[in-house]
Amino acid sequence: MDLWYTEKHSENVGITLKATRSLFSGKSEFQQLDILETVEYGRMMLLDGLVMVTERDEFVYHDMITHPALFTHPAPKKVLVIGGGDGGTIREIMKHPGVELAVLCEIDGLVIEKSIELLPSMACEIDGRNPRVKLHVDDGIAYIREHRDQFDVILVDSTDPIGPAVGLFEEDFYRLVFAALKEDGIMVAQSESPFYHAEIQKSMYGNLRQVFPIVEMYQAFIPTYPSGLWSFAFASKKYHPVRDFDRARAKNRGFYTKYYNEELHLGAFMLPTFARENIAG
Amino acid sequence: MDLWYTEKHSENVGITLKATRSLFSGKSEFQQLDILETVEYGRMMLLDGLVMVTERDEFVYHDMITHPALFTHPAPKKVLVIGGGDGGTIREIMKHPGVELAVLCEIDGLVIEKSIELLPSMACEIDGRNPRVKLHVDDGIAYIREHRDQFDVILVDSTDPIGPAVGLFEEDFYRLVFAALKEDGIMVAQSESPFYHAEIQKSMYGNLRQVFPIVEMYQAFIPTYPSGLWSFAFASKKYHPVRDFDRARAKNRGFYTKYYNEELHLGAFMLPTFARENIAG
Repeated sequence: MDLWYTEKHSENVGITLKATRSLFSGKSEFQQLDILETVEYGRMMLLDGLVMVTERDEFVYHDMITHPALFTHPAPKKVLVIGGGDGGTIREIMKHPGVELAVLCEIDGLVIEKSIELLPSMACEIDGRNPRVKLHVDDGIAYIREHRDQFDVILVDSTDPIGPAVGLFEEDFYRLVFAALKEDGIMVAQSESPFYHAEIQKSMYGNLRQVFPIVEMYQAFIPTYPSGLWSFAFASKKYHPVRDFDRARAKNRGFYTKYYNEELHLGAFMLPTFARENIAG
Repeated sequence: MDLWYTEKHSENVGITLKATRSLFSGKSEFQQLDILETVEYGRMMLLDGLVMVTERDEFVYHDMITHPALFTHPAPKKVLVIGGGDGGTIREIMKHPGVELAVLCEIDGLVIEKSIELLPSMACEIDGRNPRVKLHVDDGIAYIREHRDQFDVILVDSTDPIGPAVGLFEEDFYRLVFAALKEDGIMVAQSESPFYHAEIQKSMYGNLRQVFPIVEMYQAFIPTYPSGLWSFAFASKKYHPVRDFDRARAKNRGFYTKYYNEELHLGAFMLPTFARENIAG
């Protein structure tokens, strides 16, 4: 069978990938979950028909949602991930030996369960064996409302602002994140494609600037995401990701990162003109 | 009619774009040329079925093949473009008032002719009216063999290393380019996708290092190209693109660039780890 999966990135353009088989297809309380085996990108997880991660290019997203914040904060000990049920972000956090506790708060237990079963290279640290990792199957907003002054870093590893993640792009949520962070805490959130999602970015960065004194955008290339150019919002109470970055600590990190490195950390914040314009204050 | 054009970026993955009509389809002496009207990306030119340029994202490629070299060289006056028959690179060069002459050497006259007719936003400076622009419909290798110590900058705006462009990735060609450049000259050449074309990059950068004392890779994101992550080789006799870059001159450039800017110039050379590894010497 010649099976191709096509994701429309807009009404008029998409990516198409040859697949060999479906490993799982089912509906949770929150969304449709599919895991396909593709020829070029390995196993691929889709939520409501949108590509979330693939085995071949997940290293970019997970390096870049994690390491810029964890190498800007001088000593992150307690980290919260909202979303990220595939486990890739937790895997990267665990590479930092100074982190004492990483909490994963994912709304959809089925995503965690199927990732452990079918995406072990990502879910390797969320299978219950690592005492530095705690899982909560819960709504991120409800969870964060109950925590004050607790986390050094919060990573918002969400889907697009449709469906269950819509609240994660609003000012009220960022106020809860601000309160849940310690006095020198940092939040990073995925912030869509500068090429396709200018309006979402404008609104999201406007909301963040109402709450955090330091708000910067940085970029990464993710082949299976719309346009290939993706972005992250870096929102911080005290540390600036470029001016306060300790390049030597990042250089001597002692573990391999296939995308992130101490030079790229700085380069990622140097944006194309049109991306700057999307979030001009 | 619901018309979709799908380009395979490898045997197993591709991009698919909704088109409304074909504006031109024909065969030259060298290749198959098609120009389609797409909904998302405007007019799109294909050579042998591969996307060369689209109206919506061509600004990235043309900014990035042109301005890094022209803002690294302190006073470029004479510039040669090999390939680039759509005219977009010449258009960007013409924004530099210090350039006295830009020569376009394109092997395929049909590409020039149809670009002038159907892609006027790119071909606006190659229609014969600008006395600072000269066109040669000729093989780039033959042309460059006849020139010595002539150009400040040579931009190799080629197709992939298959078909007519294959010679443009070889050491013999780079020796001719070196000879055609003045003693402080710079060459920039498109150098494929770090994500899909590791082997081509390894060979190409190895060849360049046999010839030029300074060889660096830089990156740009181009949504319609394979993986979205594209690269350029910067090969130079004297000026280093980061250490010798005059940021103030680039900042005060006096014209708008939708992708390039003086910060991005530096950031573009800060590469992901896997891209560095492709060209590790």
